[in-house]
Amino acid sequence: MMYAVIMAGGRGTRFWPRSRGAMPKQLLDITGDSTMLQQTVERIVPLVPMGNILIVTGAEQAALVRKQLPDVPADNIIVEPVGRNTAPCICLAATKIYQQDPDAVMLVLPADHHIGNPSGFRTCLKAAADAASETGALVTVGIAPAQPETGYGYIQYDRSHSLSGAYRVQRFYEKPDRERALQYLAQGNFLWNSGMFIWKASVILDAVKKHLPAMHDLLFPLKDIWGTPSINEAIAEAYGKVQPISIDYGVMEKADEVYTLAGDFDWNDIGSWSAIYDISAKDGSGNALRGDVIAVESENCMVYSPNKLIAIVGLKDIVVVETDDALLVVPRDRAQDVRRIVEELELQGRKELL
Amino acid sequence: MMYAVIMAGGRGTRFWPRSRGAMPKQLLDITGDSTMLQQTVERIVPLVPMGNILIVTGAEQAALVRKQLPDVPADNIIVEPVGRNTAPCICLAATKIYQQDPDAVMLVLPADHHIGNPSGFRTCLKAAADAASETGALVTVGIAPAQPETGYGYIQYDRSHSLSGAYRVQRFYEKPDRERALQYLAQGNFLWNSGMFIWKASVILDAVKKHLPAMHDLLFPLKDIWGTPSINEAIAEAYGKVQPISIDYGVMEKADEVYTLAGDFDWNDIGSWSAIYDISAKDGSGNALRGDVIAVESENCMVYSPNKLIAIVGLKDIVVVETDDALLVVPRDRAQDVRRIVEELELQGRKELL
Repeated sequence: MMYAVIMAGGRGTRFWPRSRGAMPKQLLDITGDSTMLQQTVERIVPLVPMGNILIVTGAEQAALVRKQLPDVPADNIIVEPVGRNTAPCICLAATKIYQQDPDAVMLVLPADHHIGNPSGFRTCLKAAADAASETGALVTVGIAPAQPETGYGYIQYDRSHSLSGAYRVQRFYEKPDRERALQYLAQGNFLWNSGMFIWKASVILDAVKKHLPAMHDLLFPLKDIWGTPSINEAIAEAYGKVQPISIDYGVMEKADEVYTLAGDFDWNDIGSWSAIYDISAKDGSGNALRGDVIAVESENCMVYSPNKLIAIVGLKDIVVVETDDALLVVPRDRAQDVRRIVEELELQGRKELL
Repeated sequence: MMYAVIMAGGRGTRFWPRSRGAMPKQLLDITGDSTMLQQTVERIVPLVPMGNILIVTGAEQAALVRKQLPDVPADNIIVEPVGRNTAPCICLAATKIYQQDPDAVMLVLPADHHIGNPSGFRTCLKAAADAASETGALVTVGIAPAQPETGYGYIQYDRSHSLSGAYRVQRFYEKPDRERALQYLAQGNFLWNSGMFIWKASVILDAVKKHLPAMHDLLFPLKDIWGTPSINEAIAEAYGKVQPISIDYGVMEKADEVYTLAGDFDWNDIGSWSAIYDISAKDGSGNALRGDVIAVESENCMVYSPNKLIAIVGLKDIVVVETDDALLVVPRDRAQDVRRIVEELELQGRKELL
């Protein structure tokens, strides 16, 4: 039996002004007609039955998550009282699956990825699930790097150690500078770290026990009370004490037996408006225009105009995003810095815009 | 007795989206707390009594002109049924002044200029009025060129012919390319053509009779019926037939005795959003920001945000102008091309945005 855990708790400050606390990027339809979360579910449902899809999200977003996913059983939507990064999130979901079947394989998927080839994606995840099931290893999906990207982490693997189609991971690397990224590509045995993981519930809980024992102590007992009235209070109590840490840093980088499968599908982690531009349909001048837009002699711009006319003249490589109460204008190559606006709004205490 | 005629009929398509048919740039407060038309009146009133200030405007703008200028007598607001360029406009106003005093000097002033030094401006106009009164010549105000501007017309004058402090004009030149503009500056006897004129009512009407006799035939008879109930119908009839032509092309470039005075004041004809940027107060990064704006690492931008937050990040040399129903984004050096948006809106038949 296979499960999927979709991590839908992020905030997405780089997608301001569309992303807000109660409306993070994964709940927005910025990549198509449905939201990124809905797309994530649609993508996986041919592989995992709806009843086995768990969503982990935050209190502020839970109502909207339920509304966007009416076919996911209400019990499968796990609400974190506060965000504590990915390790507690994954560990929490693992205890719920463990309760059903300790050796069930779980696919851990972020809710905010773009996948160009869903069928190739499922083929890869199926192979990863088989590898995780057969070997009892921690498996991660790597992506064959298309360019020397400096915005992603990298996975170095050992060509001589393969197991059920997966290669053993030698080391994880943080986002490199361009020179290093070029070296990685030249070496050939490097993949982008996609942040997707596949393992048995029992295996990841054992790994948490080994590398994050305090976290294991707090969360593992929850396996016995899922479905009882005390579960929410127990989660709240555990989350009040648990250390916030990523699964990469807390477990993956320390574990011995980690394997990676190279994904054969277009992938983009949709980290900024620039990534949205990259995956959007464009006109003959390279402009991605949505809504009521007039573009005169403009190139490679992205304009999102839900409410009124936006006119651009002689503009190049600029992103314009409007909402009811705010407007953003930023060059595409500065899209990462949109978070600086959110920081400034926090400093100014302008909660209505956050 | 001195009169002023303020030409307030233009449309200002380069100031879209703020300028509209019923709200052209001269009726907007884009250069300060009062509108450009109000500033024009305030600037001239120490020299010309309010009762002698005439405003020529269009039917669509007349109500707003009256509202903005409650101290100008209602009879002094002349409404053109249709725009016919500057020659009919000036000729029409001249017949009204002629009725009062044929030899009165009239100052003809556009309503959409920025003057950095109003006192120097008035000194210059007073001298020009004296010259026009003493010599019976057509007098125009030239501006000592501060840079090889390609956006203005030029006046070449003859240093050896001066009269009452004014120099005789040798020739008017259209907007030059940069190379020519540099030549003009090197020659030294070139001024920018400001579009401000000073002459006796009788003198300009004689000049119109000589160079545009059909126009004179249509408009000169109006001198007898100002103040009677038939004036509006008579204007409408004459305007139905009169040739649309500029005073520069129709009279000034053909007349023999034209003189120019070099103005000693900062002057800008506010031809585009870029000109508004030039005369605006700026922060330490060269940004001219008005309204609710957050600018992160941005330089030399102009943002006008009357309604909501506009956030810019890493932006350089860009103009952003918002209104209730439209938004413009354009590089400063492409601000002239904003009229292309208006042309496109006309093609699309989107009258509500024009």
